[in-house]
Amino acid sequence: MSEGTAPYPVIVLVRPQLGENIGKAARAMLNFGLTEMRLVSPRDGWPNPDAGPAAAGADIVLDGAQVFDTLADAVADCAHVYATTVRKRGVTKPVVTPEEAAREVHTVQGRSAYVFGPERSGLETEDVALARKILTVPINPDFGSLNLAQAVILCAYEWSKQASLVQPTVTDLGEPAPQEELEGMIVQFEALLESTGYFFPPDRAPATRRTLRNLLTKPGWNHLEVRTLRGVLSSLGHPRER
Amino acid sequence: MSEGTAPYPVIVLVRPQLGENIGKAARAMLNFGLTEMRLVSPRDGWPNPDAGPAAAGADIVLDGAQVFDTLADAVADCAHVYATTVRKRGVTKPVVTPEEAAREVHTVQGRSAYVFGPERSGLETEDVALARKILTVPINPDFGSLNLAQAVILCAYEWSKQASLVQPTVTDLGEPAPQEELEGMIVQFEALLESTGYFFPPDRAPATRRTLRNLLTKPGWNHLEVRTLRGVLSSLGHPRER
Repeated sequence: MSEGTAPYPVIVLVRPQLGENIGKAARAMLNFGLTEMRLVSPRDGWPNPDAGPAAAGADIVLDGAQVFDTLADAVADCAHVYATTVRKRGVTKPVVTPEEAAREVHTVQGRSAYVFGPERSGLETEDVALARKILTVPINPDFGSLNLAQAVILCAYEWSKQASLVQPTVTDLGEPAPQEELEGMIVQFEALLESTGYFFPPDRAPATRRTLRNLLTKPGWNHLEVRTLRGVLSSLGHPRER
Repeated sequence: MSEGTAPYPVIVLVRPQLGENIGKAARAMLNFGLTEMRLVSPRDGWPNPDAGPAAAGADIVLDGAQVFDTLADAVADCAHVYATTVRKRGVTKPVVTPEEAAREVHTVQGRSAYVFGPERSGLETEDVALARKILTVPINPDFGSLNLAQAVILCAYEWSKQASLVQPTVTDLGEPAPQEELEGMIVQFEALLESTGYFFPPDRAPATRRTLRNLLTKPGWNHLEVRTLRGVLSSLGHPRER
């Protein structure tokens, strides 16, 4: 790709179960030119001896794979996080197809991450809450049975298809704040609300936090906007003497 | 699909080796609404007990699979035959991508067939000679390693994308809140910040208010989200006893 185009996206596998599937995902990625894999708490640790054979030669992907404890850590430097899921979640986030996501990934500023859940269960609601958007492959409504590597390959394929098409005209809206900045703001917000008794009763607190997180990750605020909001929160938390 | 559209394409597997891969191909097909599979001289005969488990429920495809002795027989009723291959063959036939093939399949008259070769070796030159066109997935030139089911799924996916079969689902994000709701929220926010001494010094207050307003009107929050935020602000303004 020429200078000035968006950086290559990252593929994040959350709590993958089988090393074989990690290898297959690596193979799927490299077929379409993606090399950066991140693993969040792989069930059987890392490295995993079953991954290599399944990667069919995509060793460069496996050798470079980074391991993280949490999804938040894994996407901390990413400005655009797509949670892939086949099921409708009760969250109000935009849903995009692999094609739409690829178009965005090529034209936005900042790094993008495609996030995939564990083979059996898919992403948890809390994982999805971290994402800006949901990516859903439009699939046969009567038979939706994509495995991990297939979901990865469709995303990588669409990204690759558009790699040659995209003009490097990026509108400067102010680079969207990376995930870790948003995260810092959300933590601050929650601490403040905690002190006011907002999260009451306790058994509703997780749902309330999720609602708040979904709401605060929606806007795509830039650096400056997040900084402004944090100033607001500081002011609310520590009123100046007047 | 509506009446008058082209018939669904056929997936032809030529001399497939492993029953497992036949099953995986069936699963890939049904994910994108394709059901008609034809097998040319499957190595281990047919039916094959390894196919079912790998199909992950796509039994309708396997149960309906027809077996032929030759590729010529298998595509006898097809007007448009695409030979899939990753390698350039020394034959002078048009080469199309999965996307281009899908567009043709949807618009031409007569049945179309996507033909895939054996896992290890791919299609023989004589097989390719039967086809009208060659279908090649545009792949990483330094690492082309698509397996059978992956090649099938990319073709089926592109076909499905262009069928009206699967409408991209438009998510109901909730209608954006009307201006007056936003306005009410902003007024509440400002009053709260006023009480904390946020708008200091006074001569900078108008610019600060403008910044805040721009930031709060950016997200396109819906009705419910605005209500949630107002609850948050109320909580900050009137902490509950703990």
